[in-house]
Amino acid sequence: MAVIYEKVALIGLGLIASSMAHAMRQRGLAVTITGHAKSAASRDAAMELGFCDAVFETAAQAVEGADLVVLAVPVGAMEAIAAEIGPHLKPGATVTDVGSVKQAVIAAVAPHMPDHVHFIPSHPLAGTEHSGPRSGFATLFENRWWLLTPLDGAEASAVTRLRNLFEAMGANVEEMDAPHHDLVLAVTSHTPHLIAYTMVGVADDLRRVTDSEVIKYSAAGFRDFTRIAASDPTMWRDVFLTNKDATLEILGRFTEELFALQRAIRKGDGDHLHAYFTRTRAIRRGIIQAGQDTAAPDFGRGGPAAKQVQNEGAA
Amino acid sequence: MAVIYEKVALIGLGLIASSMAHAMRQRGLAVTITGHAKSAASRDAAMELGFCDAVFETAAQAVEGADLVVLAVPVGAMEAIAAEIGPHLKPGATVTDVGSVKQAVIAAVAPHMPDHVHFIPSHPLAGTEHSGPRSGFATLFENRWWLLTPLDGAEASAVTRLRNLFEAMGANVEEMDAPHHDLVLAVTSHTPHLIAYTMVGVADDLRRVTDSEVIKYSAAGFRDFTRIAASDPTMWRDVFLTNKDATLEILGRFTEELFALQRAIRKGDGDHLHAYFTRTRAIRRGIIQAGQDTAAPDFGRGGPAAKQVQNEGAA
Repeated sequence: MAVIYEKVALIGLGLIASSMAHAMRQRGLAVTITGHAKSAASRDAAMELGFCDAVFETAAQAVEGADLVVLAVPVGAMEAIAAEIGPHLKPGATVTDVGSVKQAVIAAVAPHMPDHVHFIPSHPLAGTEHSGPRSGFATLFENRWWLLTPLDGAEASAVTRLRNLFEAMGANVEEMDAPHHDLVLAVTSHTPHLIAYTMVGVADDLRRVTDSEVIKYSAAGFRDFTRIAASDPTMWRDVFLTNKDATLEILGRFTEELFALQRAIRKGDGDHLHAYFTRTRAIRRGIIQAGQDTAAPDFGRGGPAAKQVQNEGAA
Repeated sequence: MAVIYEKVALIGLGLIASSMAHAMRQRGLAVTITGHAKSAASRDAAMELGFCDAVFETAAQAVEGADLVVLAVPVGAMEAIAAEIGPHLKPGATVTDVGSVKQAVIAAVAPHMPDHVHFIPSHPLAGTEHSGPRSGFATLFENRWWLLTPLDGAEASAVTRLRNLFEAMGANVEEMDAPHHDLVLAVTSHTPHLIAYTMVGVADDLRRVTDSEVIKYSAAGFRDFTRIAASDPTMWRDVFLTNKDATLEILGRFTEELFALQRAIRKGDGDHLHAYFTRTRAIRRGIIQAGQDTAAPDFGRGGPAAKQVQNEGAA
């Protein structure tokens, strides 16, 4: 494929940034990739693994002359980085981020962007439960969604160019506005993650059931919770602190529903439970029909019907 | 392998019973398999698929002369079946069940068992999100746990024989007492399922996020909930009604923890969130170390590291 951005600067060198670098390398989408991470170990790993051509101790150095700058740090670190790099951005450069929350990132970053750059926020719905520069791989974004939330008045050609990059990495790109993004993700990702974290914490607190039993019999349902509850703690802390309103609203609804089911159990109201479980089963069918999962009954057992498990760590 | 029970009667012909039949056939563990299901369509399917040699309209007929009787009906249907078959059981026969709850099944079944039979309750931690006689397959129990909760004074040789059958189907067998079983499963399976059902119900209620968006972006976390929330509604209704005390207790703890996290979000207490998420991540590592899952970062993408997803429907 053709080069889309001559020089790309990755600020933050974790799972997402390293996967982007591998994907750009593999597909020839960039000529030079520079990087910055706070930790020397991460910078060293980027050079050792060869996914950066040069690494720098400061973000300001890394963005010099870059045609595309990717902010791939936890949401809580975005503002300081934006303030630091603002004066060093090349005129006409595009700046994007990969944060899981969009309104808070826009509020933190936009004020520091000079008029002569294109700031186009984005969010790849991709990840694993692993983090750090050694966890990236070139195919992370294949067949995954990458959401763009361009600001009012964004230059169409700059948006198209960024979209082309993400599509060239294998992603399916959609555009939506930032408040809607944050609500959709509160439902499909943020609240489910908080609930999973909670359930895993509860199990850990129980002393009458031993840890080894919880682990041994985890395949009965609990294990799926541990997978999504194993993602990066810093990233998730920032998600909840910065998408507070939408997450609290969905949590409020969740608690109401849970109490209604709890009451049905206490009262022995089997009809209520049966009707509820029948309705949720239909939603699962919708997901299978939409091609987001497979219906194979022996999924994941390694046979030809092996299921595609995606994105447990995506926020 | 050698025949373990000459004649086996399956009462209920759903996922578990049909999988047992396929496994016994494939491995030569039984000579004759009879079956009973309330629905004529299920009985017809058993004959059409060939996993039963004969099917009967009543459970009483199906158990005539059987060396092993397997009660594979929803927990709420166990008592009526036990009362019906009690007088027809062959002296020396073993009766087991595959219910997800053990104390309630024992209370329902044991009083109807004549002295001359061995009633040995059991619970295979195996399942998929599918149900019915056409969803079974011979390898369902391979490398899965099958828990036995023998009553006080159970005859050791009868327990060993049943254990041999389950092990010959590929399962790993453990014994524990019924109250402990019900608590362990409330933590590892029943409460996680209720929570997953609730989360899926909440998403379905939201009108500002369209159904198609919930489905489209489900891979970001929500999808794992839909998988475990798609299991058989009747089975799960009965699980919650019959393991009420343990489930309500774990739910109470869950709600307390969730409120503490919710409060931390509202107050912006990042340290609390970070510490909690760090602790739950460690639990995930324990599960990987125990060999109950894999750590492959690209799990399930169909490569050699494809993850073993097991048992989403197990209770």
